[in-house]
Parts: sequence; structure tokens; C-alpha cells
Amino acid sequence: MDTQPAEMTVHSAQPYNAEPARTALAGRELTPVASFYHRNHAAERPAIDPATWTLRVDGMVERPATFSLGALRERFAEHAEVVTLQCAGNRRSGLMEVADLPGETPWGPGATGTARWAGVRLADVLRDVGADPAASDVVLTGADVADEPGEPYAVSVPLEKALAPEVLLAWSMNDAPLPDAHGAPVRVVVPGWIGARSVKWLDRVTVADAPSSGFYQSVAYRLLPADASPAPGRGVALGPIAVNADVLSPADGAEVPAGSVRVAGYALAGGDRSVVRVDVSTDDGATWTEAELAPQASRWSWRLWHHDLDLPAGTTRVVARAWDSAGGVQPADPAELWNPKGYVNNSWARVTLHAVPGTMER
Amino acid sequence: MDTQPAEMTVHSAQPYNAEPARTALAGRELTPVASFYHRNHAAERPAIDPATWTLRVDGMVERPATFSLGALRERFAEHAEVVTLQCAGNRRSGLMEVADLPGETPWGPGATGTARWAGVRLADVLRDVGADPAASDVVLTGADVADEPGEPYAVSVPLEKALAPEVLLAWSMNDAPLPDAHGAPVRVVVPGWIGARSVKWLDRVTVADAPSSGFYQSVAYRLLPADASPAPGRGVALGPIAVNADVLSPADGAEVPAGSVRVAGYALAGGDRSVVRVDVSTDDGATWTEAELAPQASRWSWRLWHHDLDLPAGTTRVVARAWDSAGGVQPADPAELWNPKGYVNNSWARVTLHAVPGTMER
Repeated sequence: MDTQPAEMTVHSAQPYNAEPARTALAGRELTPVASFYHRNHAAERPAIDPATWTLRVDGMVERPATFSLGALRERFAEHAEVVTLQCAGNRRSGLMEVADLPGETPWGPGATGTARWAGVRLADVLRDVGADPAASDVVLTGADVADEPGEPYAVSVPLEKALAPEVLLAWSMNDAPLPDAHGAPVRVVVPGWIGARSVKWLDRVTVADAPSSGFYQSVAYRLLPADASPAPGRGVALGPIAVNADVLSPADGAEVPAGSVRVAGYALAGGDRSVVRVDVSTDDGATWTEAELAPQASRWSWRLWHHDLDLPAGTTRVVARAWDSAGGVQPADPAELWNPKGYVNNSWARVTLHAVPGTMER
Repeated sequence: MDTQPAEMTVHSAQPYNAEPARTALAGRELTPVASFYHRNHAAERPAIDPATWTLRVDGMVERPATFSLGALRERFAEHAEVVTLQCAGNRRSGLMEVADLPGETPWGPGATGTARWAGVRLADVLRDVGADPAASDVVLTGADVADEPGEPYAVSVPLEKALAPEVLLAWSMNDAPLPDAHGAPVRVVVPGWIGARSVKWLDRVTVADAPSSGFYQSVAYRLLPADASPAPGRGVALGPIAVNADVLSPADGAEVPAGSVRVAGYALAGGDRSVVRVDVSTDDGATWTEAELAPQASRWSWRLWHHDLDLPAGTTRVVARAWDSAGGVQPADPAELWNPKGYVNNSWARVTLHAVPGTMER
């Protein structure tokens, strides 16, 4: 199923930024590679020969080392994890309806997806080189360089997270070799955190005593107050992702037969939390009904849900929201959380359905 | 400062449930014991002689053991941690304004407080007895027995949390012996989780392969859908607490001089998250200004904040809200999260101030 090209909405060709229709994600524990969103920063994708690729591991370590792909495979055990990745800008288009976000990609609901990733644990590599326990952060640098800001893509995660067993250096996606477009030969997968931390085309791992001071962590991917402008260190670096949910099927604006209609979607708690409930409303949140939750493929994957509505003829706005294991619930309105870079739109999910009478037999 | 009795709002005498005025909590990293909320389930407090008290540790352990207070002190290192406790019912009165919650205690803003707790790590005790790593939960049983349901107070935490270094069996509160009223001789302190998990008058620790099936975890302290009734296993057991904040000073309804007025409060992220920003609004959330955050006493304590408003004469409603390190923000309205047991009211904080002109000289 991964070989059939899916229809993607291409936000830009260079860098290539594209997302699937929401319905392409619906009802699937694993997102086909062909329907997995693309988020690039550089106009040109790095061209890396896996046979000569090496990973440099340095910084606050006892034994700085360079690993070939073969060395990683031989030296460390392979682990697989089903993980949902989600761009911090997912659902930004909902924020743009509140107020414009010039220069930002208008991501819809599709800048998220779930895959089975396999590779080695970053923790195993860090232990092998003798990472200094007094360090605080691990900087992850990719081979991709955008003209602006002209520096390689680099971000960091706290050492505590880098040592967690779920963080992988992955060379496989959905049981096939990691595609070039998704970071081959090796990318990082940081479960529960914004996609921006899952560095593609990994080049270097540096153990450090501070978070990355690079553009992508000190200026971009930060939550800013509504009246602030991006500047180094302004706002807060985004890390774990907040509880979110979306309707994946039917499509927004779909025409459906009046009567029983199954609404389906996903919810994602973020960080190390889990989704404990999803509610659906057809009266804009005045009353809610619990959706049925599917079993979860892994602790780090989204939770699929569905709910059968009995839709009268006419237009109905369907609203959904998720609760996390701390009793936290999504905020209602995108205006409440609008921010100048357009991140973390985790307001209630909303789609509009048009139910047509007398079409139940078709 | 801990010896002077503070004025408390007593919700019930037996069991004794009482909270301080919000202003008694304002501006203090540590809450004086005299201003610390009391949440009891049994009409009578257990009377325990520390000299003969013992703690039983059993269940899925290699070496079941019984520890006297002296044995705990001798065998394990003492650790201290500044931790905010918060009742899951804190701010329930705000939910009662949405719809009645018969039989529930109408907690205001004061069912929370911060203290320095000292004792031994539960993890050290569990390792000492050889807790089975295949276990999943640790049941904590107190000596207090309420007539309804007629069973000792017992709840559980996941083994992973029980093994975390921040979870204490505490015999000291604010550098003085733990008062009888707060669970002497030994209580549990579970940082980041609802107060109900911090079992007082600890009697027994049982390593198990399932969460507690007792009343306080399977029926009470659960998040229920708005239309559900409490029943064993219905809803979701509350654990980590969701991001919350409150205004602590001035008091709600206070008369203040027009002009510059300092508004101060706390924010708490819950779980292992941190507070990254607090916003204040005087136009019901249409626009917000960042409050100034005080340094945090510990990873597990609340974050104090303040903001100087320039109040015109007349009535102003001051609104505050906090963001956590996942980019999660409090929901706006208590109606969004009303639930039949009245837990987790983490809607925006609101107080009304009456500014009086021409009183700046007084």
C-alpha cells in the first residue's frame, strides 16, 4: 500500500512541504509512507550515500566516536516503536482564520502521521560513548542546510529524554528502508515531542550542557505571546506536544446521507501522557457524547476513535475534543491560543457535514 | 509562623475539611502549616503512637518487611523536596456555579498548598524489599477508615511513579515533625499528582499487578462524562494534575485603590511538566499580558507570579491562565469541563476587583 502515490496538498515545492487529505489518515493505525506529511527546511534534500555515511557522536562524552551504518547495526540492538509524529504547525490554518500569519505554511489537519520506526536506541549510543551524566542536553544536527538561516538544521532534547528507551535513531519506516524523503539513511524519532525534534538526515549527536543555540530552537519553534516578535530566546521552546485531536473522516464540508454517519478521527496526548477520553458534540460543545476508542498500537501512537451520529438532513458542525491522563482537555477556540508563529493549535476539532435526505439507499 | 492559627473556612467538622483564604497563600513559596488545607475522609482522625507504629511492605516483593519509624530512619537516607499538593476538588465551587454538585465539598481556591517534605524515598524502600519489576502498581493504605465506604483509605500509583526519586514517605513538613492532622507519623507525598494519592497515616505499602480496586480509586476521584453516574470503573482515575493557576491576591471582590494594583498568584503544571508562562487579562481574555514569574523553589512546586495592573475606578474582572511546557493552556470556561464529581476545575482564574478613586494616599 505504500507504493501507490497518494494525493498530497503541496504547500511549497522547494522546500517540499506537503500533507495528505485528512481522509487518507482515517482509520489506520499506521499511515502509509505515501500519505506521510513532508516538512522540509532546505530547498534541496541532502543526497547521502548510505555506504559512506557516518554519524559523529561528540561533546561531553568520554569516547567521541564515528559510526558507519554498519557499525550502528552491528554494535547495538535493533528496536522498533510505533510513533506518531506531529508538526508543531499542524492545524495552523485554523489559527490563520483568527488572524493572518504571513510567511507561515498553512498546514491543515494532515501534518501528522504514525509509522513503525526501527533502528537503535539513542540511549544505547550515548551509553556506549560514555555521555557525561552532568550534561543536560543532546544536540541533534542534520545534513540539511536552508539558505535562511544558512546553518545546518539542529535542535536539542534534554539528556533525560535522549536517554529514554523510546527515542530512536531510525533507518526503517513501516518495515521498509527509511525513504530519502523522510531522512535516510538515519533520522531521529522523539516520541511525544513536536516533529521538529525528530531530526532527519542525522549527521551529528553532541552531548552538551545547554539546549541548542541554533536558529531552529532559539528563534523558530517557540511559543510566543500574541503581541511578541520572534527573537533569539523570546518565548518558550516547544517540546512535548499538548493534547490534540481531529476528525479524519468524513472530510470537512462533505456531503453525506442523512441518518447514521460514522465520524472517525485520532487523538494524541503528547509527552508521556495518554488519551483517556474523546468527546463528540453536534451542538458546538453544549453537550457531548463519548466516542469509542480503538486499542492503542503503542504508548507513543495516536488513539483512533469513532462515533456513529444520527444526522438530520441539513448542515451539522461536528466538534470533537480529547482529554489526557492528567484530566487536561483541549481549549475550545483557536482565538484563545493564537500565537505569532502559529504553533500548537490544539483547539477543538471541527468539521462541517451536509446531510442529504433520501440517499440512504445509494 | 507556623504556630499562629490561621483563619480557615471549615466545610465540615467531621470529617474535618477546611481551607485557608486565598490571600493566606499569596506570595509565599512555602505555605505555613496553619494555612495548609485539610482534607479528611474519616470522621475521626487515626490516633497513632509513633513509638509503636509500623509500616508493612508486602505484595509482589521478595522480602516482605515491617519497618518501625526508627528502622526507616536508620535504614534509608533522608531526602527533602518542596512539593505543592492540590486536592482534585480544588476550585470545585466554580463548577457548582455551572450546575449543582450535591454532596460534594464546595472547595474554593485554597485546597492547595506547598510545603517542604522530608522523609525517605518510597523507591529506596521498594528496592530494599525487592519489589518485583513485573508488578505494575503500588497500593498505599492509610489507617483512616470512613463509615462510608467502611474500608481503609487506599489508592495506588503506577510502579514507575512509585520508583521515581521525588515520591517520599514523609515525617517532616516545613522542617518540623509532620503534624497529626497531616498524616503523622508518616504520609506519602506524590509530587505532580492529585492530593488524593498522597496517603496520610500510612499503614501499608503493597506491590501489586493492578491498580487499587478500593473505593477511592475505582469509584471516587474519577473523571466522569457529564451525563454519567459514579460506578466502579466508570470514567478515568485521576492521577497527574492538569495545568492550573489562580489569583491569590487581592481577594475576590476586594476593594482596592484605583491606579497601580499588584495581582499575584500561583500556577502549577502538574505531572512532570513545568509552567512556562502566565497571562493576565482585564478584558475577559480578548487580550493578555505576560505576568512576571518568580523563581521556582523546586521542579515539584508551584510557580508564583505577579503582575501590576493600572486599574481604572470601577469594577474589573481579572483573568489569569497558565501554559505548561507542552504548550498546553487552561480551558476558558468551567462549563467546558463540568463533571459529576466536580474535579479538575482548571478553567481560567477569575477575581473581581472594585477600584475606588482617590484613595491612593491612604
